[in-house]
Formats: sequence, C-alpha cells, structure tokens
Amino acid sequence: MASYDPNNVFAKILRGELPCHKVYEDDKAFAFLDIMPRTLGHTLVIPKAPARNVFDVPPEYLAHVHKVAQRVAKAAVKAFNADGITIHQFNESAGGQVVFHLHVHVLPRHKGEPLKPAATFTEEPAVLAEQAEQLAAALAAE
Amino acid sequence: MASYDPNNVFAKILRGELPCHKVYEDDKAFAFLDIMPRTLGHTLVIPKAPARNVFDVPPEYLAHVHKVAQRVAKAAVKAFNADGITIHQFNESAGGQVVFHLHVHVLPRHKGEPLKPAATFTEEPAVLAEQAEQLAAALAAE
Repeated sequence: MASYDPNNVFAKILRGELPCHKVYEDDKAFAFLDIMPRTLGHTLVIPKAPARNVFDVPPEYLAHVHKVAQRVAKAAVKAFNADGITIHQFNESAGGQVVFHLHVHVLPRHKGEPLKPAATFTEEPAVLAEQAEQLAAALAAE
Repeated sequence: MASYDPNNVFAKILRGELPCHKVYEDDKAFAFLDIMPRTLGHTLVIPKAPARNVFDVPPEYLAHVHKVAQRVAKAAVKAFNADGITIHQFNESAGGQVVFHLHVHVLPRHKGEPLKPAATFTEEPAVLAEQAEQLAAALAAE
C-alpha cells in the first residue's frame, strides 16, 4: 500500500487551503458536504489524522469518525426528512477509493430515490451552503 | 422508526439458534461470513447489543464494531490477497437494509472484479467453512 500523501484534497481542506461546506468539527474529526453529491445532503466525515484509509488509520480515530457519522446520520433525518441512511467507506482503488484520506460517506436516502452514480453531478454552491447550514443546525440542536 | 425485533436472523445467530460460519467473537462484537457473498470473503460484523441500525446503536458498540471491521479488513488482505476493501452499512429499507440488526459489510476486493448484485448468489457451505477458517487464522495471527 502507498503511504499517506499530505497533498490530497481532503488534507488541503483540513488545512484551510481549499474551501468546503463545513457541517461539523471537533478535535479529532471534520465533516463537510460532498460537492458531487450522490444524494441530497451527502456528507463526508474525515479524521484529523494523516490516515490514507482503513489500513493505517489509528483505531481510536476510526471509532471517533464513525461516532460522528452516526450523529450526522441522525441530524440528516431531522434536517432532510430522510427515510434511511447509506454509509460507504472505500479503501484503495480496488475498494472504490478516489481521494486517499480516509472518509466515511453518509448518504441520506429517500424512498424510491436511487443513488446517483458517483461523480456525475456537481451541486450549486448556494444549494450546498444552505444544506450545510441546515445540517449543522440539526447537529447543534441534538 | 420501528423498534428492535429480537427474532431477526442475526439475533438468532447470536443466540446460537441458527448456524453460521464464524470468523471472530469478543464480548461486544461477532463476525461471520455472508452466505450470499457479493465478493470472496464477504464478512458481516455485528454488535452483541439489540441494535436495529445506526439510529439506535449505543455509540460505544458502533465504535467497537468498526474497530473489529478494521481488523477483519486487514486480515482479509492477508487471507485472500485482497487489493482493497469496500465497507457498506445500511440503515432502514430506504438505506438498503434488509436484516434489522445493525451490520457492517466488509467486502474484500480484487482489481477488475465488480461486486456481485446483492442476494443473487449463494456460496457452497464447504467453501464458506474454508474461507472462515482462513480469515479467522489471519485474525488470530495479528
């Protein structure tokens, strides 16, 4: 397995070198909206640690990221009236990974609405900004 | 959301009322092979708690289940020479859930081999027994 590349786009988002639509942040995790969402409210939760994927992430960071993903899932039900949540986490290219900083996809689902194919649709920044605000508010109101 | 049904098939497996191809067990988690695998070595990791899905699982159980899934992922690379790992976790019917006891799918991947569609292929028990043994041995050798 290749080693961690600190110039991946999520590392740049963590360092504030690239913008994002932030949903949540604490000392060990960061959550923001996917700009090419497969569903409304598609959120990524990442560790604040230089982890490529499940193979090298410290277990405590992995555990914390999934606890945050759980909170995002519950908040998405409130914010977007989701009927369910699909969680994906891809490791190495053969596992579906494209950006090599560990990330958990939290995909709010509505009955009868399939996932869009990955990387086929770019959402408007104004729409993402509003959704991030709704989701952040639902998280803060827990 | 509906409440937890203690008669779901994974609860029966936990109670020993149904057989399974066990891979791993500790005080809070249990792992076994999916009998309708989407890839070679498709493993399910479940909590030993009456949790329907991400919405009601105690966070500490969710965290532990994902730590075990990480260990299974690493073991699957050794046991099956996997090139990557795909992790799925489905919540409520709209999220893809079919059995209503929280479970994390650990899917060992090989380059160029797509996931089989869900629930389309039933593996031979003898094959599953051998794979469970290989995976359990890789876990124990960590």
